[in-house]
Order: sequence, then structure tokens, then C-alpha cells
Amino acid sequence: MSISSPYYTHEFHGDYDLVSVGRLELEEGGSIPDCQLAVATWGELNAARDNAILIPTWYSGTHQIWRDVYIGPEHALNPERYFIVAVNQIGSGLSVSPHNADGPNAALSMSKFPRVRIGDDVVAQERLLRDHFGIEQLALVVGGSMGAQQTYEWAVRFPDKVLRAAPIAGTAQNTPHDFLLAETMREAVMSDPAWNGGEYATGADVAAGLKREAHIWGVVGLSTEFWKQEVWRGLEFGSKDEFIVGFLEPYFTAMDPNDLLTQSWKWQRGDVARHTGGDLAAALGRITAKTFVMPIDEDQLFPVRDCKPEQQLIKGSELRIVSDVLGHLGLFGAAPTFMPQIDRHLGDLLNTKV
Amino acid sequence: MSISSPYYTHEFHGDYDLVSVGRLELEEGGSIPDCQLAVATWGELNAARDNAILIPTWYSGTHQIWRDVYIGPEHALNPERYFIVAVNQIGSGLSVSPHNADGPNAALSMSKFPRVRIGDDVVAQERLLRDHFGIEQLALVVGGSMGAQQTYEWAVRFPDKVLRAAPIAGTAQNTPHDFLLAETMREAVMSDPAWNGGEYATGADVAAGLKREAHIWGVVGLSTEFWKQEVWRGLEFGSKDEFIVGFLEPYFTAMDPNDLLTQSWKWQRGDVARHTGGDLAAALGRITAKTFVMPIDEDQLFPVRDCKPEQQLIKGSELRIVSDVLGHLGLFGAAPTFMPQIDRHLGDLLNTKV
Repeated sequence: MSISSPYYTHEFHGDYDLVSVGRLELEEGGSIPDCQLAVATWGELNAARDNAILIPTWYSGTHQIWRDVYIGPEHALNPERYFIVAVNQIGSGLSVSPHNADGPNAALSMSKFPRVRIGDDVVAQERLLRDHFGIEQLALVVGGSMGAQQTYEWAVRFPDKVLRAAPIAGTAQNTPHDFLLAETMREAVMSDPAWNGGEYATGADVAAGLKREAHIWGVVGLSTEFWKQEVWRGLEFGSKDEFIVGFLEPYFTAMDPNDLLTQSWKWQRGDVARHTGGDLAAALGRITAKTFVMPIDEDQLFPVRDCKPEQQLIKGSELRIVSDVLGHLGLFGAAPTFMPQIDRHLGDLLNTKV
Repeated sequence: MSISSPYYTHEFHGDYDLVSVGRLELEEGGSIPDCQLAVATWGELNAARDNAILIPTWYSGTHQIWRDVYIGPEHALNPERYFIVAVNQIGSGLSVSPHNADGPNAALSMSKFPRVRIGDDVVAQERLLRDHFGIEQLALVVGGSMGAQQTYEWAVRFPDKVLRAAPIAGTAQNTPHDFLLAETMREAVMSDPAWNGGEYATGADVAAGLKREAHIWGVVGLSTEFWKQEVWRGLEFGSKDEFIVGFLEPYFTAMDPNDLLTQSWKWQRGDVARHTGGDLAAALGRITAKTFVMPIDEDQLFPVRDCKPEQQLIKGSELRIVSDVLGHLGLFGAAPTFMPQIDRHLGDLLNTKV
């Protein structure tokens, strides 16, 4: 069974291809028989195959935000120079996910979808790049939030394949605080009786729970200064409540609850130290990529204090702090000062010889 | 109707007196016919009646935590020198509250309890001190969190009656971020079907919602460093989950949902600028008390950045930042470094001639 959704469509998300990487064995056991990944690309792979950039996606986000905000000839992520590949994560709703599992994946539908880890995504992405695009090495892996988790996983798991890495607003090892924070969002959804253990007719049935999740994001995803300075005025909302009802709530109610839960379970457990028996220093010590660690100064989910100690464990890395009064959701690029910082840092990184 | 609760008792809370201040007209309209306040005192009022200290209570807290942690001959709040009066706020569960409204207040029971504001509490407290104790002036008003809100309200509303003020970990004007944060806690409770619009048989029926509230407190009430440093080990818990299940959850599930909602509605709307048509500078400019503004450095609810601008609007005030890795819940005094700071600041304040 799969649920039809107006959100997870080409009408809403524009061009992307569904590419199967075949059966994917999962770290937690079980497998996805037909692991379909939703992939969007910009630019062209050059003959030397050395201009590829990979972008893994964040929680609740897709390739769309990268296309609309981060990528373009005026940006460091310039499709006139680079072949840019955005891969939507498993559970994103575009790639194989609880709400769309059908055909060979029908046994994984809805509440039966297996637990997926960051490492599963990265294994699937590596296979996709190699088998589908013939890419053996990446000029850059860059991602925000859960995309940063995947970026770290790439740099630790496949050090020879990652020349540069830019984890933005995310950590290599999720903190206990961040685990609990994600759990409050999960509980907001799962406590909605309409969620019904993951067996609902449509995601819209769970709107009450998704709105509560949206409200938690309004508190932790944005900063006290965002609200005090009424930054929502610059986003063309007339009041705090209009911003909540007009942006935060519909952003989440459009999405599938089980898909979000698949992602957040994964987010909670991001940890590159799984490769080294729990030794974070050893895991980060494996990284050979030139790495810019890029926390957002107002971020309550992945504060600088959590990102900086990881950066210090990565040889030759730099801490590039991004200032944004929005906090974690600064990743949406709403502040006019956001992208110039991102472009400067990614530009410096891409111009670094490795 | 009133609900019997093992928590809101002398067995649990020790000595306190119920004192009626009579009918209390409310800022939002309506009245409490028989406004009973639960009052605990330590020490003796001297002949000059100039050694009185008032402590209003915080959200979910009562006089108990002040007795156990803050008050004693070894502390600045020394009952051998001062007559210390702790007044539990309306809705605290000990003073008149939704769950215990009976007799003349029976029409206010449960979901019918009226909306109460910080100003209502302060008016009731002033009447209590004057009529019951014959106190016309306070050597100090000190409170944490919602107690800080009441402290500010006292200093602005009754400037002649407050010689010294120490708002700890709280603001004079609640921020929009803090409003939304409290709202997520309210939604956690009100979304529990057992809450039933405030008409339940016992608070224990709403345990699922109260546990979700507890989990949100675990995220916003404590700091990332609390969890990362596993500070709960020092509180004699064996794991993160034991701390949540053994402390945070039972702390809230013992309480009455409607009582908590009465308090949080009040918390959300704390604002001394109601006295001056919205002009915060004018309101804080009324304060004549020697004021120490005492935010906690790791506080996510009332961060220093929100407290400092208020302090700067108070003539002759000082910003005394308290360092505590626990964040807002540092107010519980669990860190051995907490009370020495509080005692030093309150000692300095009490020793300041005014």
C-alpha cells in the first residue's frame, strides 16, 4: 500500500529521477528490496570525473531547498563548474519511504518500514554514485543538519572518496540533548491518536500531532532573537501567529508522519564512532578530507560548543562559524546575510588544493 | 468538587498555613471569592517590622524547595536575622487552584477556574502581608523564574514597599520565544485525550501528557552540557533514562494538570509594561528597589541576553550572572556551586544600605 500525497510529487519538487541501487542490507537488520533514491543533478560531470559534489538532505528537507537557495552560477555550488548531485535521504518521502513503499517494497509499507541509519544512506549513495554515475571520488560533500551527519559519515567511512567535506549545522556524533530534543518532536506526532501506531489513511489525519511538532520547531529551531526582533516581518508575515499558522504548521502538515519518524530515528542515532568501537577521536582521525566545520552561532540543536570539539579532532580542519539570528532554521537561507557566508566558506574550501 | 492528591499535602510539603485574603478581583475579569494562600514562614518579624523577606514561588514549585535549599542559618536567607515569608502562587496546588477549589470557590473548580495574572498574585500577596502580618515594607523580594516575574511586578507596582529585589532566572516582560516554549508544554498536556478539556477524575489520568511535558523540560530546562557531561550521575542516577523516569517524569506526574496550566498561562503573560501602556523602560524606570538581576548563564528559558537589557533599564541595578551547567533547572540547587553564588549575591544585596 502507498499513500498518495500532493507534496511528494514532481509538481511540488520539480525534476528528480528515481534510481534504484538494488537491495540494501541495513545496519539494524533486514533490507530494502528495491532501494529507490530520488536524485537531482545540476551541471555536467567532466571527462576527468573530478568535479562532482554530493549533497545529502536534512530532516524534512529535500533537494528542493538546495536548488532554490544554495545552487546556481552566482553561488559556490556552481553548476557551470561542478556536477552537483543531491540525493534525498531514505525516508525523505521522495526516496523509498514508509508512505511510498510498494511493489517489491510493499512488505515495508507504513508501520512495517525498517529502521534505517545514517550509514545505510551513505552506503546507498556511494553505490548510486559509482554504479549510476561512474563517480569514484567527490570534490566535496556538503550537507546541513542530518546532511551534515551524512557528510561526516562519508568522510569517515570512505575517506579516500571525499576530498573536501563541509558539515553545516550538524554533528558527527549526536548529543544526548539533541536525542531528547528529537524525541519531543517524535512524541508530538506519536501521541496523536490518529497516528495509530503508524497505520493511518492519510498523513493529514495526523495534522494535530504534526502541528505540535511544528510548534516545538518554532521554539528550538529558531532563536529567542528571531522572535524578539520579529524577523518574521522580513519573511512577509504580519504577526507571530501568522508565521506559525502560515509557515511552520503547513510546512509539517504537508509531510508524512511515518516518513518524518523514519528520518528522526536516524537523526537521533547519527554517530561516526560506530566505526571505531565508540572512539570518536579515532573515527574523526580517519578523515583525510579537507574539512570546514560550519555551525550556526544561534543554533540550539547543534550549538558551536558541540561542533567545535569535533572540529578539533579533524586534522587540518577549520571552524567556520556562520552567523544567523534564525538559529538552526537559518539553513532555509531566509536571512540575506546567510548565503554570502555559505558561499564564502564553500568557495574557500573548493579553492583549497587537496 | 475538589480532587484529593497525595502531593498537595502537609505530608509532602511540611508546615504551611492557609490564609484567606478574601475576595480577589482579577485583572482578566471575575474574582476568586475566597482567595486562600498557602504561606510558610521562617524566623520572626522584629519590632521595627523591617526585616521581612518575601519569596513568591515558581512554576511547578512551592515553598518547599526554598525551605530545603535556600533558607537556613548558613544562607543569606537566614531566619535568625530575617522574617522570611514564602507565598505559594495562585494555581500552585497549595494556594487556591483548579484542583482544590471548593466551598465558596466551588464554582471555580477544574475547567471553570479563571485566568489569573502575575499582578493578581502580587495584589493578593500585598494584602496578605499587610493585613495578616502587618508588614508595610519588604527588606527584599526574591524569586526564581515565575518568582522573578512576581518580584519584578512587586518592584514596579509597589515601589515604596520594596527596598531590594532579586529576580533570579526570569524576566520582567516575557519574551515571545518563552511564550511559545511554555505553549509546547501546555499542548503536551492538553493534547492528552484524558485531559478532557480540564475535566478529569484525577491528575494521574493525564500522566501521558504530563510525561511529555517532563520530556520537554528535559530539553529546554537543562543544558546540552548537563546531558553531555552526564551531570545526572552526580544526582545519583545510573543513566540518562533513569534520570528521566526517576526524576523528571514523577516530578510532573505528581502534579495537577489544570494547576500547571493555570500557572503557565500566567507565566506566558508576565509583563510589567502593562502598568505603562506597553512601555517597558517606563515600567522598569519606576523601580526604586536596589535590584540585582540574576540570570543563569546556561538558561535557555530566560537567557542572559533577555535579562541584561531589562537590567540596564533599572536605576542603580547590577547584573549578577549565576554560572550553572544545569541551565534553568539549576534553580533546584543540585550543583554544589549554585548556592554559594546565590548566597554571595543575596548577601551583598542585603548588606547594601538603601
